[in-house]
Amino acid sequence: MLANQLTNLKNKVPLVHSITNYVTANDCANIVIACGGSPIMADEIQEVAEISKMASALNINIGTINERTLEAMLVAGKSANLNQRPIILDPVGIGASTYRLDAVKKLLNEINFTAIKGNLSEIKALAAQHFNSYGVDSSDQITTENLPQTIQFARNLAQSTHAIIIISGRIDIVTNQSSTYLIKNGDPMMSQLSGTGCMLSAMTGAFLGANSDPLAACVASVCAMGVAGKKAALKLQPDQGNLTFKNYLFDEIYTLSPEKLENEARYELFK
Amino acid sequence: MLANQLTNLKNKVPLVHSITNYVTANDCANIVIACGGSPIMADEIQEVAEISKMASALNINIGTINERTLEAMLVAGKSANLNQRPIILDPVGIGASTYRLDAVKKLLNEINFTAIKGNLSEIKALAAQHFNSYGVDSSDQITTENLPQTIQFARNLAQSTHAIIIISGRIDIVTNQSSTYLIKNGDPMMSQLSGTGCMLSAMTGAFLGANSDPLAACVASVCAMGVAGKKAALKLQPDQGNLTFKNYLFDEIYTLSPEKLENEARYELFK
Amino acid sequence: MLANQLTNLKNKVPLVHSITNYVTANDCANIVIACGGSPIMADEIQEVAEISKMASALNINIGTINERTLEAMLVAGKSANLNQRPIILDPVGIGASTYRLDAVKKLLNEINFTAIKGNLSEIKALAAQHFNSYGVDSSDQITTENLPQTIQFARNLAQSTHAIIIISGRIDIVTNQSSTYLIKNGDPMMSQLSGTGCMLSAMTGAFLGANSDPLAACVASVCAMGVAGKKAALKLQPDQGNLTFKNYLFDEIYTLSPEKLENEARYELFK
Repeated sequence: MLANQLTNLKNKVPLVHSITNYVTANDCANIVIACGGSPIMADEIQEVAEISKMASALNINIGTINERTLEAMLVAGKSANLNQRPIILDPVGIGASTYRLDAVKKLLNEINFTAIKGNLSEIKALAAQHFNSYGVDSSDQITTENLPQTIQFARNLAQSTHAIIIISGRIDIVTNQSSTYLIKNGDPMMSQLSGTGCMLSAMTGAFLGANSDPLAACVASVCAMGVAGKKAALKLQPDQGNLTFKNYLFDEIYTLSPEKLENEARYELFK
Repeated sequence: MLANQLTNLKNKVPLVHSITNYVTANDCANIVIACGGSPIMADEIQEVAEISKMASALNINIGTINERTLEAMLVAGKSANLNQRPIILDPVGIGASTYRLDAVKKLLNEINFTAIKGNLSEIKALAAQHFNSYGVDSSDQITTENLPQTIQFARNLAQSTHAIIIISGRIDIVTNQSSTYLIKNGDPMMSQLSGTGCMLSAMTGAFLGANSDPLAACVASVCAMGVAGKKAALKLQPDQGNLTFKNYLFDEIYTLSPEKLENEARYELFK
Repeated sequence: MLANQLTNLKNKVPLVHSITNYVTANDCANIVIACGGSPIMADEIQEVAEISKMASALNINIGTINERTLEAMLVAGKSANLNQRPIILDPVGIGASTYRLDAVKKLLNEINFTAIKGNLSEIKALAAQHFNSYGVDSSDQITTENLPQTIQFARNLAQSTHAIIIISGRIDIVTNQSSTYLIKNGDPMMSQLSGTGCMLSAMTGAFLGANSDPLAACVASVCAMGVAGKKAALKLQPDQGNLTFKNYLFDEIYTLSPEKLENEARYELFK
């Protein structure tokens, strides 16, 4: 299942339009290239509709959102919806402020997302906002104990938002409500590098932009990042740190073949 | 011819003012340092006139342009013109939206550029806008077959804009209309790294800011980037990717001596 | 004295809120992680008060300041003051424009900073603005000859601003007026990398956010950066440049233990 997704990506070279934060924009551009796509970043409200239409996918990331870029996200998202382009939302740090919660609520109200990706606390905050409920706990982690409830939670949110829900963690969950995948690659070192989440969203935009099966595309992207992160961590020496890890991570994504992805990824369909 | 240009750069340590995109701003700052200059990034409209006056050169890059930064570019450009500072324009992704085409038209109408740099499709889009004509083809590449017409096209545009035209590609063209250089260094790996074009523009700002012969400065800068890119690609191992390539590219620019540049660059004056 | 500061940082994992420039934001985020903290970047005026309250420290850096982000800095700073969070100011390039001088004046008038960090010319420009005097010399460097006067100048400014003054240079000065530390680590290579100053400020935010003795926290942070810079420069080969140096610098910060910091830092209390 995975190899095809990456083969299609490398054959199509999809253009991915990102409206993203300025902290990790460079890494997002380079990872889109590394996996086989082509990046464009643009957030001027007068041009984003046109660019989202031209692109194969839209990646919306609220990492350093402001009033101007929120407007651009809304305009770009509507254009992508109208032109049937897949859209991924990364609600970075959504729990950090009322403003971010409100911004994501607006985005969810006005745009149909193909996929939404976050860690468990981000996805819980988004769900609370979406359902007008409470209960954000920023220390939430996926554990063996809470896995069944977390899967049910993700499925409910997928049903409610009509989006694929991607929850990243020690075990990654990817679900479109009817089918749910559990993915176990990755390495704790990935949390020691700023932007691994943003990079995953940008790369998922590339997978979505090149494939017709959004769930398979999301699973392939999450597996690609996890396999690369695990292999990069194995290369890291005790005297090396998070920037060297970033170089290794990009080495792995850049040289990841469809076959290697298929053979090395550990994932299962949850029954 | 080239060695002198780089010697002057390293002796003068020119301050280069960039109004540029947030995707590759860090790389632009570091490459200006790596080649021997000193970078400053500033885009607040209230300060850019003063900073462009103080700087030795101005680098305008529309990669993530918006209404606010376009205004700053216009103010900075007029100040640089008034104070006789060289200005380079990088019309990144100009063909991606009507907004970018219009923005570049405004910039060309109100500012006299010393040099304009882009790939063939960007320069064609800019020319179409400048001449109020059509015919943008984003898949345009310089080939042996279209080289004579492309050279003539570049010369016409240089005449019309009074700017040095730099078209980057497998063969780079640098022309001020009366003299035309063909440059053949570089490596395809350079297109696998986000921002190599932006870096070239920023570095060209440094060369222009330290030298009195703008054409020679542009040729030297294009040769420096190409020589560095070629040598960096030779170092790259099969298990390494585009971020490791960036490190090697900076290693090469940082350690490029005037003599090495002169000896290793392949360029010719077109008759 | 130093080991404790770093131990506390690694135990507390302080959240550092940065309103900073887009040129070095990624490096600032990653160095906060590398030393043991957790970064958040946010500059929307509607959310910064909330985020500064939640964070353990606030880092204000004017590198690419504009009217919108200046307002956000003022709001965030007042919130941090109200909630007794430490704040560090990095007046990057303050001498480059009247706008930056005025912006810093506003910041100093409306916010109580815990620490202010700059090179000698930046701190002199800030002092001139603060005292309504003149005398900015951007080529100012700390030398053995001007050291006594520079220490006195720093002490006066610390008294007047009620902030710890950090002047970085070949000899770093850290003073809260009553106690003054002279720090002699580092390497000239650090000035060949864009953002080492910004990284120091961000990391100092992490040290301040995890420790109760602000002077000791600042001294520890300056020592950590200097020790890391010196060791990174020793690793650098003759054919390597400033981006490779950045990787080595992050390797050193990431692997710097409290004991190593204590043993390798050269600093003295000035009598």
